[in-house]
Amino acid sequence: MDNRAIGVFDSGLGGLTTVRELRKLLPDERIVYFGDTGRVPYGNRSRETIRKYAMQDIRFLKRHEVKLVIAACGTVSSALTPELSAEAGVPFSGVVVPAAQAACAATVNGRIGVIGTTATVRSGAYGRAIRTINPDARTFGNACPLFVPLVENGFIEPDNEITAKVAEIYLKPMIDERVDTLILGCTHYPLIYDIIDRALGSRVTLIDAGKQVARWAQGYLAREDLLAGPGGGGTEFYVSDSPDGFSEIAGLFLGGDVKGDVTQIDLDTL
Amino acid sequence: MDNRAIGVFDSGLGGLTTVRELRKLLPDERIVYFGDTGRVPYGNRSRETIRKYAMQDIRFLKRHEVKLVIAACGTVSSALTPELSAEAGVPFSGVVVPAAQAACAATVNGRIGVIGTTATVRSGAYGRAIRTINPDARTFGNACPLFVPLVENGFIEPDNEITAKVAEIYLKPMIDERVDTLILGCTHYPLIYDIIDRALGSRVTLIDAGKQVARWAQGYLAREDLLAGPGGGGTEFYVSDSPDGFSEIAGLFLGGDVKGDVTQIDLDTL
Repeated sequence: MDNRAIGVFDSGLGGLTTVRELRKLLPDERIVYFGDTGRVPYGNRSRETIRKYAMQDIRFLKRHEVKLVIAACGTVSSALTPELSAEAGVPFSGVVVPAAQAACAATVNGRIGVIGTTATVRSGAYGRAIRTINPDARTFGNACPLFVPLVENGFIEPDNEITAKVAEIYLKPMIDERVDTLILGCTHYPLIYDIIDRALGSRVTLIDAGKQVARWAQGYLAREDLLAGPGGGGTEFYVSDSPDGFSEIAGLFLGGDVKGDVTQIDLDTL
Repeated sequence: MDNRAIGVFDSGLGGLTTVRELRKLLPDERIVYFGDTGRVPYGNRSRETIRKYAMQDIRFLKRHEVKLVIAACGTVSSALTPELSAEAGVPFSGVVVPAAQAACAATVNGRIGVIGTTATVRSGAYGRAIRTINPDARTFGNACPLFVPLVENGFIEPDNEITAKVAEIYLKPMIDERVDTLILGCTHYPLIYDIIDRALGSRVTLIDAGKQVARWAQGYLAREDLLAGPGGGGTEFYVSDSPDGFSEIAGLFLGGDVKGDVTQIDLDTL
């Protein structure tokens, strides 16, 4: 048993979809969430800048004596090498490997699509992880840089015409390549799950990367005997820009009220 | 005569539309441009964070011994108070006052619209500047948070269906309020000038805030006898993320090739 918290971070609010899943699977765990809202988004930045920001984010979480750090962000997960993750000096997982495992288990025709930010797709990280598990699988990536701003600006109703049109453009290559499984490689995308599903004609299995890492964490903590004892569950939120309006938008991602304190930290202290 | 450079900055690349105009009006001037590409965009951040970033940006430009600093960014221009600008310790202008003057000169019915980022519209800065010039004018603001990501992701062809649809939604309140003049309060917007114009039925005078500040600078330098001597014109570019791909996208904003060096600076040194 280990009552230390699980640290979760993201460039902004997308990672809250992972927190939602963690809360469902592991209600007794204490979660410390950091959203780098002062520098969001990461998805169009260079690999070097993403790595630098990510290591600062991990350092911040480590100050909270966490037993595990989860990068609930496709962009960060794709930019970090195993060496860098090891350097963090704390048990660590991104979303890439758990999502790759789920996709390999789900595919029938071995054709797996990956959508994410520009940086995620450019990195090729999902493809590498998939080929490690199944060398015969073929992967097809497409960057969807407008999905994050669309989600963050609330264009998420299942019948939203604009997001549907953008999804049609971004997902056409996936239909053309006959993928039977698609990794939602960015933790913002579950908020437009229905729109993506519809653009694909509901014929493709969608893999929610943020959900998969939550499942992986459940297994890992159980295996390592690191699960928290009952009754101490809860979430503390930290952000790097003003927390004004945070609860409102965060509620969208968490699928309900934000229970827990929201504290602003100074970027200079990262 | 004064051969020191003009410093121009923006959260990212939008300010290059102002550089384009400055080069046209003042070809002999040396321009030092800083685009904070490592932290772009500013438009959804809190006023405090925008002010902090802006003061760092100004400090960076001052190291280049500039004779004038232009915030070629609607968001920064709206967030800085006269006191903060004075604190910069260098002649300074944002885009708000020059744009407000042009709008007041252009309007016939006294009904002026302002579009910009969330932070710009929330600040009310354009409205205050307009009422100082013409207390009878009425202003109507509407935030257009998707325009910047649409522009930065290249959804700018005049017949782009998605941007046209978004423009229709964002600009409907302007038609309903019968504005006859609309300030493009963000330096990204000139790239979708035609789409905005069409959404308004081409009945509204558009004021390009970035162009207006360039005109203001021309007048200011002439009045103060600070114009550069002939032959020394050129632009140096500084960015806070990798310069990879900068020239390509910058060419879009500048309406041509990027002539001049592009240097990456470390955010920690700001």
